[in-house]
Amino acid sequence: MMNVVKSFFLALCVGGLGLSSIAQNPDIQHLHPTNWWIGMKNPNVQLLVHGKNISTAKVSLAYPGVQIKKTQKLENPNYLLIDLVIAKTTQPGVVKLVFSNGKFKNTQPFPLAARKHKPNNITTADFIYLLMPDRFANGDESNDKFSNMLDTQADKNVPYLRHGGDFQGIISHLDYLQEFGVTTLWNTPVIENNTGLKKELHGNMQAAYHGYHFSDHYKIDRRFGGNEGYKKLSAALHQRGMKLVQDAVYNHVSEDHWMFLDPPTKDWFNMWPTYTATSHKEQVMLDPNGTEADRRLLIDGWFMPFLPDVNARNPHFATYMIQHALWSTEEFGVDGWRIDTYKYNDMEFMNRCNKALLDEYPDMLIFGETFVTNPAFMNYFVQNNVNYPFQCNLPGSCDFPSYSAIGDALTQPWSWDGGVNRLYSTLAQDYFYKNPSKMVTFLDNHDTDRFLSVIGEDFAKYKMGITWLLTTRGIPHLYYGTEVLMKNTKNPTDAEVRQDFVGGWKGDKQNKFTAAGRSAKENEAFDLVKKLANYRKNTPSLYNGKFTQYLPQNGVYVYFRHDTAKTIMVIMNSNSAETTLETARFAERTKGLTGAMNVLTEEKINSLGSLKIPAMTTWVLELK
Amino acid sequence: MMNVVKSFFLALCVGGLGLSSIAQNPDIQHLHPTNWWIGMKNPNVQLLVHGKNISTAKVSLAYPGVQIKKTQKLENPNYLLIDLVIAKTTQPGVVKLVFSNGKFKNTQPFPLAARKHKPNNITTADFIYLLMPDRFANGDESNDKFSNMLDTQADKNVPYLRHGGDFQGIISHLDYLQEFGVTTLWNTPVIENNTGLKKELHGNMQAAYHGYHFSDHYKIDRRFGGNEGYKKLSAALHQRGMKLVQDAVYNHVSEDHWMFLDPPTKDWFNMWPTYTATSHKEQVMLDPNGTEADRRLLIDGWFMPFLPDVNARNPHFATYMIQHALWSTEEFGVDGWRIDTYKYNDMEFMNRCNKALLDEYPDMLIFGETFVTNPAFMNYFVQNNVNYPFQCNLPGSCDFPSYSAIGDALTQPWSWDGGVNRLYSTLAQDYFYKNPSKMVTFLDNHDTDRFLSVIGEDFAKYKMGITWLLTTRGIPHLYYGTEVLMKNTKNPTDAEVRQDFVGGWKGDKQNKFTAAGRSAKENEAFDLVKKLANYRKNTPSLYNGKFTQYLPQNGVYVYFRHDTAKTIMVIMNSNSAETTLETARFAERTKGLTGAMNVLTEEKINSLGSLKIPAMTTWVLELK
Repeated sequence: MMNVVKSFFLALCVGGLGLSSIAQNPDIQHLHPTNWWIGMKNPNVQLLVHGKNISTAKVSLAYPGVQIKKTQKLENPNYLLIDLVIAKTTQPGVVKLVFSNGKFKNTQPFPLAARKHKPNNITTADFIYLLMPDRFANGDESNDKFSNMLDTQADKNVPYLRHGGDFQGIISHLDYLQEFGVTTLWNTPVIENNTGLKKELHGNMQAAYHGYHFSDHYKIDRRFGGNEGYKKLSAALHQRGMKLVQDAVYNHVSEDHWMFLDPPTKDWFNMWPTYTATSHKEQVMLDPNGTEADRRLLIDGWFMPFLPDVNARNPHFATYMIQHALWSTEEFGVDGWRIDTYKYNDMEFMNRCNKALLDEYPDMLIFGETFVTNPAFMNYFVQNNVNYPFQCNLPGSCDFPSYSAIGDALTQPWSWDGGVNRLYSTLAQDYFYKNPSKMVTFLDNHDTDRFLSVIGEDFAKYKMGITWLLTTRGIPHLYYGTEVLMKNTKNPTDAEVRQDFVGGWKGDKQNKFTAAGRSAKENEAFDLVKKLANYRKNTPSLYNGKFTQYLPQNGVYVYFRHDTAKTIMVIMNSNSAETTLETARFAERTKGLTGAMNVLTEEKINSLGSLKIPAMTTWVLELK
Repeated sequence: MMNVVKSFFLALCVGGLGLSSIAQNPDIQHLHPTNWWIGMKNPNVQLLVHGKNISTAKVSLAYPGVQIKKTQKLENPNYLLIDLVIAKTTQPGVVKLVFSNGKFKNTQPFPLAARKHKPNNITTADFIYLLMPDRFANGDESNDKFSNMLDTQADKNVPYLRHGGDFQGIISHLDYLQEFGVTTLWNTPVIENNTGLKKELHGNMQAAYHGYHFSDHYKIDRRFGGNEGYKKLSAALHQRGMKLVQDAVYNHVSEDHWMFLDPPTKDWFNMWPTYTATSHKEQVMLDPNGTEADRRLLIDGWFMPFLPDVNARNPHFATYMIQHALWSTEEFGVDGWRIDTYKYNDMEFMNRCNKALLDEYPDMLIFGETFVTNPAFMNYFVQNNVNYPFQCNLPGSCDFPSYSAIGDALTQPWSWDGGVNRLYSTLAQDYFYKNPSKMVTFLDNHDTDRFLSVIGEDFAKYKMGITWLLTTRGIPHLYYGTEVLMKNTKNPTDAEVRQDFVGGWKGDKQNKFTAAGRSAKENEAFDLVKKLANYRKNTPSLYNGKFTQYLPQNGVYVYFRHDTAKTIMVIMNSNSAETTLETARFAERTKGLTGAMNVLTEEKINSLGSLKIPAMTTWVLELK
């Protein structure tokens, strides 16, 4: 870390902070946002211009409806901020920004387009698929690696290197995703990660194939297909009525991000005298007995020595990131956002950022990654029902509490608070959330052990997990490959749970994208997901209906999804023996209903009364 | 249980429910409340009169200012309700209630006194001592047992029988309690428990020496000293400036309660076709996905087969119990209430009952027993900061979450969320509570294992526990004998943690009430409690000051109590080795303070800077 800190101060020196500079020909390296739209509700946009001694330049433009409100210098003379106001009546076209320092002149285009994107908002009707573009399918081998990037390697046989997956690989398999009911695609971040291999938490070296080390916000990684490839993916999704979730990172950037290499101000990043890691302890935010020092450590401490922690309290960096979110939404047709490392961000900033998106795109699903399994702590970071002095405005969240609970439900023995009681008592805490239906539920993701491995590769438990995911409240997401029984734990490295989807690479000996390429058991898994996801898609009472759960008894957990049209009863028998369930206690929900259709087996049940549920089995019954 | 149910219906039959009865001489067995006061804010009082065919009587009175608003019959003709209104101008005296059925006349006195009790409210300045009157000291051997009660035995040598302790025993040892800083006495319930031995949860027979099996609300148990003895205890406490907490039970009564033997209405108790135990699962109350069936099971299910579950939704039984709370407060000079089995009660009723007390006695401390260690569930049952559709109005609660956390803090190894992190993360959840300062903290009670046994009889940990109890936020209570190292687990029976205080019985070979009767270690324990409790009593900054805690680091947990007058720093080193603490991170709290006085050792510390804390030790520093 000392090297990082040194290089930071070196950068400040080279940048000439605090020195008066002799005017030079302004050489503009970055002008962000690169383009904008007419008709945004907020008529203001702040351009951040980066170039050698650009602050010495005057800027002018002549375009009807577009005004320069003000320009601002930052500490580093290589930066200039230009505040524009764009009138509603402005016509599309290219604004020419003229930078001159008396001797030289530099003209930069700033395109203004008519606004056109209307997000197809993500709701409980959706089924999200999370994949890592580098690991799903390699549709274009020509973009696997570039000799002029900091990491020049790509080798499918080395777990921690890039493997070459890309947008074209995804586009080629959208039929596959739709076949089993996926409606929405969430890629791990697609923004450029032009950085070298890093020593990750597990101590091993690792390429930034996962996408969380941004080096330039306004570039989509070339190795995935770049900005144009991403637009092509977005268009392909929208053409099918599918939706796109983008993965945002506001907490940190790569140490190779151009802004860290030439920082605009001393406070652009949260710098410490020596490397100081975040505490990872979210409790400090909600504790009424807490201290500012502990809150600063969580928020301003660094995630890793090579991930400079962003200071979102700097108003200009905040504006830069908020505008980037709006720009990405409009530029790429994003339908919803997932926000990485939510609890580590400055919450005032996050509220402003979320509000800016929601002001322009009402009801857009924005959900955070708050990897906290206790709802009593997690709730702070989402719209909640607690009278905290500060209220987060994040609409939804990855549902880590229920993720933890389904694992426990299927691995712990039935006890006072163990086994399926974990599911019950976790969802009983829905009182915390303003919108429990905006919790994004899941069995596993790129940071967790694979679900199949968590449950000891027990296929009966796998079926129970899938059935829970597709019938409980919230918006389900599946991690790529879980539908074809991909497995493994993170031990020894994260790469173990980020293996390639078999069939996505030329030369793969099998192809799990096709029924013929899957084993009988893999097809059984795939068909279960397909059957339930498609049943779900066609049954609004299941995804929109009220969720009602009963206190588990004798290892059996029963819940309902119901509205005036239909009542779906889910019975989860976690016992290792057939169990008889007397249904009289469910009278509140079964009144007037006497029989059922077993959704998975399609068998008819003529009388509810007393039901014999096989060992370790979940039934989904559509009551009649 | 079938026997209980049968006897209930038999009782209804004998009572002649639904039969028209021939008028007989009304023989009045109960008239409750037995007396009342002038000047209550609520001018209404409802008398419940019980006697053979009393419903056939007309009732009249002639007393200036007192009016009969109405009389009401219940299903059982042996009951009559009389609603009185007492004008503010009424003079003290004895109202004569005349019951006549045409042939006979029966006159009952109903004394009205001037209101005089002003509770000495319990605050954070107090230190509560919880004792079981039967097990503390036997001051009057003449009341140990009575041949005309259902349990005729008393034998100090049999753990599960009554031992003969009583109010006089307590009165004789108030000097002892005051010596080590106790300000407030909480007895387990003192109301008559005229019932036989019962098979308790652990499967063993047990006398109702604990007091939780009420047989007549308006009688204090004769074996403790009866109503007059209780008044004497109350007066003795008040004379010393000490305070009295009464233990209330609203969830159930004994199967030998006269009301259960002759139930006023079919719905006076929550009856089930067969014995149905409560689920004990409080989550059902707060779960927005929950069901009425599950809520009924918790609230209306029985606690034990011999403890009829009270139906507090019956408005007359509700009034009876609320008036009893007011009556007890005024009659005995009660300063605060502890409410047993809080989560099993009807919450609408509890709110009415609490409000009635608070209307008459503003700011009275009422705290519930909600034996739930997860704050996310416990908070529902106390005034909280969560927007539940229903809001409990209970001011305080026994702090089971922190009780659980201090045990874990001293027995678990230091880990991500274990050891002293349990204390930190539990108190971080204070955001739930409207008044964290009204949480009644403790190390053990009559229903838990003794603290010393929980911590493996480790004296260093004992000292840390005591020090935590007397410095953390809230109102501390000590369980009798913990100050002299009483120990044991509940295995095999509750009686193990309810042993006699040695020295309280004639013939005891030792007397732990005196320094001479205690071992050196017992004196060390006693002196620690005495020193800290008296320091606390004399240091408002400690008991009233803001509580601020820091994220534990490296097994050391640091918190402060502070106001403008003083800053007290508590350092809890849970490591088994001396640990150096750098105090720079506490600058928010130590600003301007450079030295300290170690409250326990009275040593001076001249420089804060870097402190060496001995292994497994808590320091209390008054900063200078």
